[in-house]
Amino acid sequence: PKVMWGVDDEIRAQIKAVRQAVAAWSGQQEMTDALRSQVPDAMVRVREMIFKEENILLPLAQETLSESEWGRIAQESSDIGYCLIKPESVYPWRPKATEATPDENAASGAMPEGMLRLPSGILKLDEIVRLLDTLPFDLTFVDAEDTVRYFSQGKDRIFARTKAIIGRKVIHCHPPASVHVVERILDDFKAGRRDQADFWIHMGPRYVLIRYYAVRDENSAYLGTLEVTQDIAPIQAITGDKRLLDT
Amino acid sequence: PKVMWGVDDEIRAQIKAVRQAVAAWSGQQEMTDALRSQVPDAMVRVREMIFKEENILLPLAQETLSESEWGRIAQESSDIGYCLIKPESVYPWRPKATEATPDENAASGAMPEGMLRLPSGILKLDEIVRLLDTLPFDLTFVDAEDTVRYFSQGKDRIFARTKAIIGRKVIHCHPPASVHVVERILDDFKAGRRDQADFWIHMGPRYVLIRYYAVRDENSAYLGTLEVTQDIAPIQAITGDKRLLDT
Repeated sequence: PKVMWGVDDEIRAQIKAVRQAVAAWSGQQEMTDALRSQVPDAMVRVREMIFKEENILLPLAQETLSESEWGRIAQESSDIGYCLIKPESVYPWRPKATEATPDENAASGAMPEGMLRLPSGILKLDEIVRLLDTLPFDLTFVDAEDTVRYFSQGKDRIFARTKAIIGRKVIHCHPPASVHVVERILDDFKAGRRDQADFWIHMGPRYVLIRYYAVRDENSAYLGTLEVTQDIAPIQAITGDKRLLDT
Repeated sequence: PKVMWGVDDEIRAQIKAVRQAVAAWSGQQEMTDALRSQVPDAMVRVREMIFKEENILLPLAQETLSESEWGRIAQESSDIGYCLIKPESVYPWRPKATEATPDENAASGAMPEGMLRLPSGILKLDEIVRLLDTLPFDLTFVDAEDTVRYFSQGKDRIFARTKAIIGRKVIHCHPPASVHVVERILDDFKAGRRDQADFWIHMGPRYVLIRYYAVRDENSAYLGTLEVTQDIAPIQAITGDKRLLDT
């Protein structure tokens, strides 16, 4: 399958080249020989690939994968998207076999010591802490009772924070002149009137984007507010493309 | 103290106005009356504030705060920064009293059920999960053994991910043509040769910034790699200032 993946990428590039050549062709002048030969070339390779998929890849997959694995593929396919035919609704088929997947094993208590189970992964607490501190922006989290509960400790915070604010009410952390604005945003978040409030200010060489987000659980219940602060000056200076393969 | 904070803000604005007026004054034309009166006005208010701080705020704080609270203030002051005099080194004073702070209580086992203690906060696992999913960028984390361990599930992911990738080696998640670049970045991160690799590509209306960061523990040991993906098109469109008080 790895070789087929490589060929897939080549074919995709070929289709893209053909599309660009066709788009560049005015329709007036004569078609160039290059364009004339590219289209059938690409079609031959597409047909070959479909043949290999139907006669080699799929039979191999049918032998290798268990029924519950096919069940997960069916479930998760909509995240990836479909090519030609999009199912009207999720197909109601459920696999008969119910052998546990590694993921489900973890849920049923076989979780290694010190690991935390998240809906889309398994992490150690120390990994979470360091991951949050590695993010190229500063986070502060205020819970549903307006109490400061967490801030990230990136190496280069834009607004200084000390541990003394943990457990403090947010209204005691804002200058009196602006605290009513903060309270209005929190009220709107709690009432579900909005989910986001953005501000941006120039601060010396920095251009600071400060965003507040309502954090909600899966039933949309309000869990708190997240402040995300980012220096966008370096991002505004980015131009052009730099791809993985350019390096 | 809240009233004093408000006055502090007013004085700060006054100092800023004076500086701007002085910067705008060419030195040639005659000083305006406004500028002539602003400087002594600001100075009177600064002196008044210093008097209040020395004769009301500090004595009040000395009565109210415990020795261990002063100890924390001394420890955390360097995060905020100093105004006129910066201590050469951290003052070696340690408070005699060692009554536990609320923060330390939490560490010694009094942590409420379901709460996780982080170095700079206390969070529930569900709050962490939702906080990560609320971030306006997509995260994927690969551990020190190159195994995919986590991805965030924001409502609007740029690159689709399915749970099937959790537990998979990262080299099986990249197109064969570019996997050697990914491996070189991971090798550099592991060897400590670099901490970051950035790429940016246009994708339809999106301008996608993809950043890889080495995640390290406090001893700089490599814990894994974090991929942070963000659509920077809306950020590049931001201009001017929008302050909290503008709303």
